Amino acid sequence: MKVGIIGAGRIGKVHLQSISRYVKGAEVAAMADPFMSEETAEYIKSFGVKKITKDYREILADKEIEAVLICSSTDTHAPISIEAIEAGKHVFCEKPVDHDVENILKVKRALEGKNLKYQVGFNRRFDHNFAAVRAAVAGGKIGALNVLKICSRDPAAPSVDYIKVSGGIFLDMTIHDFDMVRFLSGEEVKSVYAMGGVMVDDEIGKAGDIDTAVIVMRLTSGAIAVIDNCRRAAYGYDQRAEAFGELGQVAVGNDTLSSAVLSNKDGVTGEKPLYFFLERYMQAYVNEITAFIDCVQNDKPVPVGIEDGLQAVKIGIAAKKALKEGREVRLI
Amino acid sequence: MKVGIIGAGRIGKVHLQSISRYVKGAEVAAMADPFMSEETAEYIKSFGVKKITKDYREILADKEIEAVLICSSTDTHAPISIEAIEAGKHVFCEKPVDHDVENILKVKRALEGKNLKYQVGFNRRFDHNFAAVRAAVAGGKIGALNVLKICSRDPAAPSVDYIKVSGGIFLDMTIHDFDMVRFLSGEEVKSVYAMGGVMVDDEIGKAGDIDTAVIVMRLTSGAIAVIDNCRRAAYGYDQRAEAFGELGQVAVGNDTLSSAVLSNKDGVTGEKPLYFFLERYMQAYVNEITAFIDCVQNDKPVPVGIEDGLQAVKIGIAAKKALKEGREVRLI
Amino acid sequence: MKVGIIGAGRIGKVHLQSISRYVKGAEVAAMADPFMSEETAEYIKSFGVKKITKDYREILADKEIEAVLICSSTDTHAPISIEAIEAGKHVFCEKPVDHDVENILKVKRALEGKNLKYQVGFNRRFDHNFAAVRAAVAGGKIGALNVLKICSRDPAAPSVDYIKVSGGIFLDMTIHDFDMVRFLSGEEVKSVYAMGGVMVDDEIGKAGDIDTAVIVMRLTSGAIAVIDNCRRAAYGYDQRAEAFGELGQVAVGNDTLSSAVLSNKDGVTGEKPLYFFLERYMQAYVNEITAFIDCVQNDKPVPVGIEDGLQAVKIGIAAKKALKEGREVRLI
Amino acid sequence: MKVGIIGAGRIGKVHLQSISRYVKGAEVAAMADPFMSEETAEYIKSFGVKKITKDYREILADKEIEAVLICSSTDTHAPISIEAIEAGKHVFCEKPVDHDVENILKVKRALEGKNLKYQVGFNRRFDHNFAAVRAAVAGGKIGALNVLKICSRDPAAPSVDYIKVSGGIFLDMTIHDFDMVRFLSGEEVKSVYAMGGVMVDDEIGKAGDIDTAVIVMRLTSGAIAVIDNCRRAAYGYDQRAEAFGELGQVAVGNDTLSSAVLSNKDGVTGEKPLYFFLERYMQAYVNEITAFIDCVQNDKPVPVGIEDGLQAVKIGIAAKKALKEGREVRLI
Repeated sequence: MKVGIIGAGRIGKVHLQSISRYVKGAEVAAMADPFMSEETAEYIKSFGVKKITKDYREILADKEIEAVLICSSTDTHAPISIEAIEAGKHVFCEKPVDHDVENILKVKRALEGKNLKYQVGFNRRFDHNFAAVRAAVAGGKIGALNVLKICSRDPAAPSVDYIKVSGGIFLDMTIHDFDMVRFLSGEEVKSVYAMGGVMVDDEIGKAGDIDTAVIVMRLTSGAIAVIDNCRRAAYGYDQRAEAFGELGQVAVGNDTLSSAVLSNKDGVTGEKPLYFFLERYMQAYVNEITAFIDCVQNDKPVPVGIEDGLQAVKIGIAAKKALKEGREVRLI
Repeated sequence: MKVGIIGAGRIGKVHLQSISRYVKGAEVAAMADPFMSEETAEYIKSFGVKKITKDYREILADKEIEAVLICSSTDTHAPISIEAIEAGKHVFCEKPVDHDVENILKVKRALEGKNLKYQVGFNRRFDHNFAAVRAAVAGGKIGALNVLKICSRDPAAPSVDYIKVSGGIFLDMTIHDFDMVRFLSGEEVKSVYAMGGVMVDDEIGKAGDIDTAVIVMRLTSGAIAVIDNCRRAAYGYDQRAEAFGELGQVAVGNDTLSSAVLSNKDGVTGEKPLYFFLERYMQAYVNEITAFIDCVQNDKPVPVGIEDGLQAVKIGIAAKKALKEGREVRLI
Repeated sequence: MKVGIIGAGRIGKVHLQSISRYVKGAEVAAMADPFMSEETAEYIKSFGVKKITKDYREILADKEIEAVLICSSTDTHAPISIEAIEAGKHVFCEKPVDHDVENILKVKRALEGKNLKYQVGFNRRFDHNFAAVRAAVAGGKIGALNVLKICSRDPAAPSVDYIKVSGGIFLDMTIHDFDMVRFLSGEEVKSVYAMGGVMVDDEIGKAGDIDTAVIVMRLTSGAIAVIDNCRRAAYGYDQRAEAFGELGQVAVGNDTLSSAVLSNKDGVTGEKPLYFFLERYMQAYVNEITAFIDCVQNDKPVPVGIEDGLQAVKIGIAAKKALKEGREVRLI
Repeated sequence: MKVGIIGAGRIGKVHLQSISRYVKGAEVAAMADPFMSEETAEYIKSFGVKKITKDYREILADKEIEAVLICSSTDTHAPISIEAIEAGKHVFCEKPVDHDVENILKVKRALEGKNLKYQVGFNRRFDHNFAAVRAAVAGGKIGALNVLKICSRDPAAPSVDYIKVSGGIFLDMTIHDFDMVRFLSGEEVKSVYAMGGVMVDDEIGKAGDIDTAVIVMRLTSGAIAVIDNCRRAAYGYDQRAEAFGELGQVAVGNDTLSSAVLSNKDGVTGEKPLYFFLERYMQAYVNEITAFIDCVQNDKPVPVGIEDGLQAVKIGIAAKKALKEGREVRLI
């Protein structure tokens, strides 16, 4: 099975690697990027990719390519998704599908009646730790869920230029955590409250965004979820979760490069968490793309669909409103 | 120095033990309880207490007694406090001082112009773990505080009869955590939001209370604090805190009876947290009463005063309002 | 019940405190030390001790005193033990009873036919962590024992003057671990092998001792025990144990002042172990003396008797021989 | 660069996978196994291997193949190594090179004067945890080494048929740990003592072997190393190490599938270690073969050479003697 990748940035390369190394029966036949440099083209070629282009439409036009991965900038996700669907391609689309609900709904409508797979890139669903929490919750290990807590902190804030086009912290960063709330709980979010502030970088505030937030959600069962986010953690990428229920609690912590612990006059010191998402979620990226190819090849339902992409954005938009109005905002 | 204890319930006995065993230069000379049983009187006598009575006024009238500990039911804290102050006694009063702000203000006014010590029983301030968090925050180990998180869960809900007179979860249970927010951060609470539910026992709901809650607070520096509470945890008393700031994070976990870890076919299993507050905070109770006696004997300012008692109740009342109205409620 | 303490050094004071604070129905009536300073006498007096003397024979002559604690220097343990037994006193004797097996046997013979309690001060048997290991082993949690490992390291070496009269590392330091091997396994030591060296302080080597050792023992069931010792650990007092068997393993680690963990750019750092035995085993000292008083008052068998004192010394002597000869030395 | 693999058992397949997926510029061109099944041939073919044969000599004869991996049964390692060297191939040879020192020396002599790489398959040197210990020791983090401890337990004993041809526990299982002692310490073993027993399976004893052992070694600096082994651990593959020195200790524990911890009425339970070596050391296998290919391609010295293969076997043979004679056996 031949796959095309649209977008040759950091994440496009991750998927190129994953498919080339791990996915039997699939190959990356083409890769497109409007800003394709020679160096990048060289790198892509080393994986045996035959068509390297600046125009993604060449990929969509290629009859031999069954599926495309959309790894371009966020504002192009929805329109390219629609074009790809119309060209009869299965689609794997990076998150978020769009900052605008209406644009996501257009993609959803484009999919109607088509026998095409559409997977959204919520990679954390494929992480070993979060999968273990989900398995414990779904397996009844904690009984009825009462309180779900997610702590998600980046090691360092992105550039203010990025912040300006990011859609804001809720649609850019928290969106992963919103999806985690839905995934880990197996529930929908009924309402949301958010408190936030600018604590990392005043420039972020001047750009109209916040960099630190606590978000509280009511879930359909009545359980409560809490996310706390920060754009900077001095000790690296902090990715933890706890699900608490009538029978107990399941919690996951951070991954480290090794389990080494040094005891000396200064204390008992273990390693910092793996630095950032490429280190922390490398295996999750492999797993998600493996799952996508499997769904296409064996006509299975995708594990993360357009509806998941839509819900996470809806929660993000409601959180924005809650933050502004200082009150709980209902979604359903 | 002679001390009298008013109230011979669970906590009164804890203080009796602490003073008898650990506090040099202080003795419990008298103990009063309107429901004093023979068995209790026998127990108290075994510590060498000379006056055992049903009438606390006998203690207040005793010129040799310099300080009293008020460990009676909550509704009597404020009136007995005022009587004791008028009788010229130093006072240690269990939490909360009262459910009503006005009654606490009466105690505050009674103290004005008197050279008397008045300490409120927020024992957790004297706990080794929470003290370590406070020391790290105050010592600049995490830099400016960004997010403070407290997880506080009881092993099992109290009786519904107790719930009915408890003042509600925020004034009965969360009040400790509100005080911890102030203590750990060294800041005041500007506003509060709360989401809660009945997830443990429907009878608690019928009694007009909730048993599970998440409370979010804005602190004076702009930092955000989050508390999550539940009246029941299958694994015992859960008492954790994390303070996160620009330079890093300090976190404390639960105490256990031993560090034993059993590895077998079922996994790698450590002990549950110490069951409940008497086990968990025994040393903290000793420390707080030692501190109180020290303040009286050496004329030092008390570590937890009437203002602390007042603020925690004010936050609790605001949280109640926030819960009802689904919005952030300002305190200052 | 009246108790006398012979020896007012560090450990004598620990027992004075424990009995005064925690042991109902027992009081320290007298305390003796040939080098009793005024300051020490003052301290002792503050606990209400009536007789303070330089001559322990005054204690032995006091008919009202039922039991004595022998906390004097090691070379006096056995002779004072015998005198005390002859005076009809129950005895609690600090470890080791003597460096010489014959002297311990004399104490044993003195006890024959007497209805007197004789407890040896192996305090670690009363420690919460080691007790948890023993409970797991005795309770069948690990099935048949295969390998028992004890790591025991002091924070810093004692003075070379002390080393010279200490009886050597095996009789001074490892003796506790030899007793732990017997206690945790519930077995006897059949043979012993030791490898050691001078790695901490050359002066210790010049004094004819070693400061670092690994000792391997065969137990009666065929299981193997390993101890590793060092007179110095940069991170403090290291006291760990693991018992491994057919069904799994139980392990205990070090205690700390708090559970605080600081995550920052340098790593994830917890506290060092409690510094040394007075901090680490304070509760164990209370427990052992409480147990001794209970045995006397209620005529129970002592938890650690003269036979335990004897066996630990025998193993120590065999270890010395094994170290010298580079081979396994049989005990039974 | 073309590589041939001799031996298509479990470990041969691991290397096939590693090279195919991760090693740029190298490919497995041929694979040989005298018992090559159709199923195995099918599997190998799916990686694009062109020559699949029962006769390894076809590989040695292939001029295009620069390097061979010897993954056949232990008794063939040395003779095939010599044949391969004579055929001018670089060699990666699985451990142990041989059970007999003389046979290893023959390989060593065959290498003399040849410009060929010869790497021995001590995969644990490439493990993230052990590498972290080595880095700490070599980087001076613990100062001069005093005591090195390795705990190495398999989840379950192999078949008695395997035991019979295994060379005994020291040459089959402990050999990895002997190499770890040399690797982690950066020192040679001067003498060795061993105590062992049959605690897992009587049939192992009948086959003349033991299944549980403690081995103590004197290193060149005077430091002491201890290994404890068992052929069975109810909780899975136990692979830990601690290096203790003048400035502190570095320790590594087991890896798990996830960091999930479940707290419930039964305790606080984490996952068991990864089950066995294929799970635990998968990345180490990738790393070692990547390093080998790199050495060949860039003419670097191999990280684990014939001398390392030789020393580990020598220590194993000395340990066997020590076990039999109950005494320390000198190596150098």
